[in-house]
Parts: sequence; C-alpha cells; structure tokens
Amino acid sequence: MEEIPSGFKFYSGCAGFYGNERPDTLVVVAEEGALVAGVFTTNALSAAPVKVARELLKNHRKFSGVVANAGCANAATGKKGVSDAKELISFTKEHFGLPHPLLPASTGVIGQYLPLEEIKNAIKNSKEHRDLELAARTIMTTDTFPKTKVLKSNEGYTLAGITKGAGMIAPSLATTLTFVFTDADFHYGFLKKALLGAVQRTFNRISVDGEQSTNDAVILLSSRKKSVSSSAKKEFEKLLQALLYDLSLMVLKDGEGATKIIKVFAEGFLSQKDADNAARRVALSLLVRTAFYGADPNWGRIFSALGDSGVKVDEDKLKIWIGSQLVYDGKPVEFSREKAVEEMRGSEVEIRFSAGLGRFHSYFMTCDLTEKYIEINSSYTS
Amino acid sequence: MEEIPSGFKFYSGCAGFYGNERPDTLVVVAEEGALVAGVFTTNALSAAPVKVARELLKNHRKFSGVVANAGCANAATGKKGVSDAKELISFTKEHFGLPHPLLPASTGVIGQYLPLEEIKNAIKNSKEHRDLELAARTIMTTDTFPKTKVLKSNEGYTLAGITKGAGMIAPSLATTLTFVFTDADFHYGFLKKALLGAVQRTFNRISVDGEQSTNDAVILLSSRKKSVSSSAKKEFEKLLQALLYDLSLMVLKDGEGATKIIKVFAEGFLSQKDADNAARRVALSLLVRTAFYGADPNWGRIFSALGDSGVKVDEDKLKIWIGSQLVYDGKPVEFSREKAVEEMRGSEVEIRFSAGLGRFHSYFMTCDLTEKYIEINSSYTS
Repeated sequence: MEEIPSGFKFYSGCAGFYGNERPDTLVVVAEEGALVAGVFTTNALSAAPVKVARELLKNHRKFSGVVANAGCANAATGKKGVSDAKELISFTKEHFGLPHPLLPASTGVIGQYLPLEEIKNAIKNSKEHRDLELAARTIMTTDTFPKTKVLKSNEGYTLAGITKGAGMIAPSLATTLTFVFTDADFHYGFLKKALLGAVQRTFNRISVDGEQSTNDAVILLSSRKKSVSSSAKKEFEKLLQALLYDLSLMVLKDGEGATKIIKVFAEGFLSQKDADNAARRVALSLLVRTAFYGADPNWGRIFSALGDSGVKVDEDKLKIWIGSQLVYDGKPVEFSREKAVEEMRGSEVEIRFSAGLGRFHSYFMTCDLTEKYIEINSSYTS
Repeated sequence: MEEIPSGFKFYSGCAGFYGNERPDTLVVVAEEGALVAGVFTTNALSAAPVKVARELLKNHRKFSGVVANAGCANAATGKKGVSDAKELISFTKEHFGLPHPLLPASTGVIGQYLPLEEIKNAIKNSKEHRDLELAARTIMTTDTFPKTKVLKSNEGYTLAGITKGAGMIAPSLATTLTFVFTDADFHYGFLKKALLGAVQRTFNRISVDGEQSTNDAVILLSSRKKSVSSSAKKEFEKLLQALLYDLSLMVLKDGEGATKIIKVFAEGFLSQKDADNAARRVALSLLVRTAFYGADPNWGRIFSALGDSGVKVDEDKLKIWIGSQLVYDGKPVEFSREKAVEEMRGSEVEIRFSAGLGRFHSYFMTCDLTEKYIEINSSYTS
C-alpha cells in the first residue's frame, strides 16, 4: 500500500451502480480539516456538484473532505440536482460528525437524478481505509485500471493523487475527476496558483475524444500537517506538475479503446496561440488518430490538419516528423517507412512539426482512435 | 442514362491508380466554352490544383472544361505540384485542341507528386461519353457508389451534378470535389452568387469527420446553350440548392463506415452564430455519433456537447428531442425509450434542440461513427 499524506482517511462504499461488489462511493475525510483549491470544467452546462463546489469554494477555505460517486453524474438535473448534492454533503457531514463542509463530485451517466437513499446507505456501510488504489478504484466508470501517483518531497511532505477518466476527455481548465492530497503546509493563495499552473500544463493538454464533460474537476486538499521551509514553493510546484502529468498520461493510456499515447509537439510558430492551436488541432484529428492506430505513416493527414488549424503556416517552411523520421521538409522527403511503422507500433509515439516562422512552441497529448472506442461508446447507457 | 446539359462531353481514362480497369481520370469538355464559378477549401495548405484553379478564375471567365483525377491529391507538393498541374491542363488543352484554359482538380493521397506520364496516357486513351454516372465514378476514391443528380427547369435548361467524398469531409465553404453542369444562360456574377449561396446551405453544413481537405472544390460550369427568361433566377437558385443538398446528403450516406444520416436542428438561439455553432458542435461530437450508431438515446451526450459549444445556453430553458421524442424539457423527462431506439435504428434520424432564448435557428448534418470508419482509415495508404 502506498503511503498517503497524513491527515486523510478514506471510506469506500457501494451504492450498487456497478453491481453489489464494486465500490462506487468515496468519502475522503480530512480529520482536522483541509485547505482546498479546485479547478472545474468550463462546460456551460456544468453538473450540479460542480455548481455546488464552486459556490462552496467562494465562501469557505477549510473543508472536512469530499463525497464523490461514480455511476451517476448528477448533470442536467437542474435545481433538484443541486439540492440533492447539498443533501448528500449535509448527510455525510452529520454522519461523520465533521465540523466543516464537504465538497461534492459525481461522474457517470448524464441526465439521471442521484439515487440518494442508495448513496446514503453506501456511506453508512462504507469501510474506512488508507488505500489510495482502492480510493481511485471507487471513482472509476469506464476506466480499466485505477490511477494513482505518490510523490515525496525532500521537505518531508507527501503528494498523493488519484484520477479517473477514459472517455469524454478534452482540455479546458480541467478534465475528469482528480483529487490530490497533501500534508504540505502552504497557504491558500499559493495552493490555488500552483494548481492552476500545473493543470494548465497537464490536464489541459490531453484529449481522448474532444468532448468536455459537465463534471470535470481537479481538487487539491492540504491537511497542512507538515511544515515547509520558506524555499519549498518551487519544489511543490514541480512535484504537483509532475504528479498531474503522470496522472493525465494514465488517463490517455486508459483512453477508451486506446492502444497508444500520441504526443504532439509544435514549434516555430508566430504566436503562443498558433502553437497551441496547431498542436491541439493535429491531436484532435480523427484521421491522424486512426492512422496512428494502424501504424500508417500517412503524414498527409498531419499536413492537412495543420492547414485546417486556422494558424499561419507556409508549406515551403514547414517540417514534419513522425517519431525519428523527418517526413516533410518544405516538400515530401524520402524517409524510412519501415522505421516509422516500427516506431508507430510502440505504446508511445511522437509527432513533431516546425512551422519555421517564429519562436513559439507547445504540445498536446492524445491517444489513437480504435474500433474499441466505437464499441464502448455505442452502448454505454443501454 | 441521365440526360446531361447540352454543350458538355466527358472523357474517362485510367491512369492505374486503382488497377487497370477502374477509371480515375476525367476530362470534361465544354465544346464552345463555359462560364465557370468555383468555391474552394479554406485549408491554409491548399493543394496545387486549388491554387492553380483560384489563379485561373481570377483572370478568366471562359473555360474549355476541367481535368480531374482521383488517387493522388497533388497536395503538399509545393512548386513542382503547381507546375505539374499546369502542365497537365496545357497538355489536355493541346490534346483536344481547345481554345480556352481548363481547370485542374485532384483528390486522393496527400504528399505524392502526380504521375504525369500515366495521367497523360490516361487522357490520350480516354473514351468519350455523356454518362453522368461514369463521370462520377471516375472521380471516386473511397466512395462506395457514384453520386449524381439531375434537375430540369421549367425554362428548358438542365442542372446536372456529380460529387465525390466519403471521408475528410468538413464544412468550410466547400467540401470534396463537386462539379455542376448547366446550359442555363446566366451571367457570371449571378452564377457565382448562386453557387456561394447554395454551398453555404448544403456542403458547408455537412461533416463526416471534421477534417477539412486540402483539395475541396465545388465548380459550376455553364455552357449557356439555353436562354432563360428574366424571371428565371429565383428558380435557378432553388434548383441549384436542391441539387447540392441532395449531393451533399449522398456524401454523408457514403460517409466512411456510416450506417445512417443524422440531421441536427438548432433553434431558439440568441444569434445566428450561436445557432450555427451549437448545431455544428453537436454534429461533430464523437460521443453523439457513436451513441446514434448504437441507437442509444443517451441524450446526456447532446446536452454535454451543447454545454461545450461555447454558446449561450440555459439548462432550465433548453429542450432536446431525439426523433419524435422530447427527452429533455428544462429537466429530464419521461419518454418512450423504445420509440426513440426504433427511430434511431432508421437510416435517417433527427436531433432537435431549442435554447428557448431567441429566434435564431440553424442545421447541420453528419453521419454516425462506426468501427468501419476506423477500419477504413487505419490502413489507407498502406
């Protein structure tokens, strides 16, 4: 069992969303309260728990924990959804006798009301543990493996993260449900800033299918049990980013039907926006993603997607690489097709291109698109 | 054989792109010249034939026809690609002894140079015909059936169209290769305006996979053989739009791997842009398209895509229909799941939603996303 930061306890229960064996309801208790920072979906039709969490974070700094469930997103549920989420956190607060509010989070099917009685029973019958993997397992939906990461600081504190997600993953501030627990004693302003920065470079740069969920949330909780030196901030930012980077790659690795991760590197663009958009557009291209599934070095699809990205490109100055192979250098060039195919068959492949116009660069990460994605998503609710 | 407008002859030849039997090279000869209007891809990395055609249309009104080939897009081919396209039209002009320039068009794999000798031989050995279906068949790539449509005017003139396309279809002014032949004697300015208007309402509102090609072109040629009355313009616009609408639906019907057409109707939005974006975003959603493939009335995916469309929506005022079933009315509502599934199993399904905020409406059309799309596109060049 991995060591989790001091000050946190987990409770996993089963409301029956995925049968009577699989846990689907997670309560995280910060025993003496935690400072909390959160980043949420920018979807205009955000789910009830996101609305409630945003509101709570406006008025409170200290929380007693989190109540999360998988199986029902409590999205598209209007006022009743909001009052259901509030009732659930009140119930949990009372049940555990906690002094501060809890944050709600839900993931699963959209358009169904929370089965409150079942979830309350799951909480009543939940079992206490400090097993990070079990906590991650409890919030899984179509995920095929639990996603956890623990990093230890030289300062003595710990960062432990869990995330879930496999489909409906697209970048806009946050993605999926991700919780990061730490005992490092930083103040709220810094935690918030560090979280935003790290999310910007990790969860905001991945996509499984270009779909942004109604429920995405990345929440950082600090129990403040471990004091830190005055010079500890830089290291914390680095660790938090490394943790979220690894967790975000796990989401891609588990991308519905995915067989490989595709990292897209854009360089030489005239502006940051151009570099970001070019990397994103290529990563979102269905034709590029299917070509990489088939290990087919059909670089014309990268070329075409770049032309369609709305950014300034010049075909005479453009260069494109697939893995180690330069495939386009202002014009089509000879390359080892065999070597390219071999590299594309790996579990992680790189696409790189240079616009040759400026100094701005960016990156974006996705996974290949396979028949399995279709299979999974053509029969999800039924 | 369908009757094609007077003044046009077709020649189909085989350059061997798809074996030695299947025609892949089409010359359209306008015997006494034709007025030509064109609409082209907005892809910043447009193919050589698109660049050459754009240039020619700036300096000429009258053309002797078109040279089109399937199998090689002549895209990402730089200056050589441009000079190849020019050489091909010069050769054809000379070979047929034509007085005016011809327009080039290519479709197929990106990043390969035109095999000029093979295409010239195909033209030398091509056979004259007036078979619209054979003409359409000659420009097919991954298409599974030739796409033609003929409409006759009460004024005595004819409109005949052919189109090709099955993947890499997305809307931005034009899509795929489409040629419309008419003998109606309208002046250039009107033809151009009518074409732009019709494309805007048809080919600009379909998508198979959100990919905009480097080669898209819709070209209207008029032999001006039939005089028209002064009141004929309205009818021509209507006929042209009807023709392009039918052709664009054929492209969707033949969308790679598609089993059904999905029509998305957006209404009640605050602006035209909002209505357009909302319809487009829902139509492009992979999760919506896979749900429709599986005949799964999982309307939460429509809801989520709407929230992610960047337009103003309010979940209390929003309504969503799948086929005849109202599935969301400011909140989840009871509906006949059985009926919805039955309708989703058809070859054409409608999604409709109303934002309940304003008077603007729009539509967009797509097809479902299936395992077959992945299969086709994971092994295209290899």
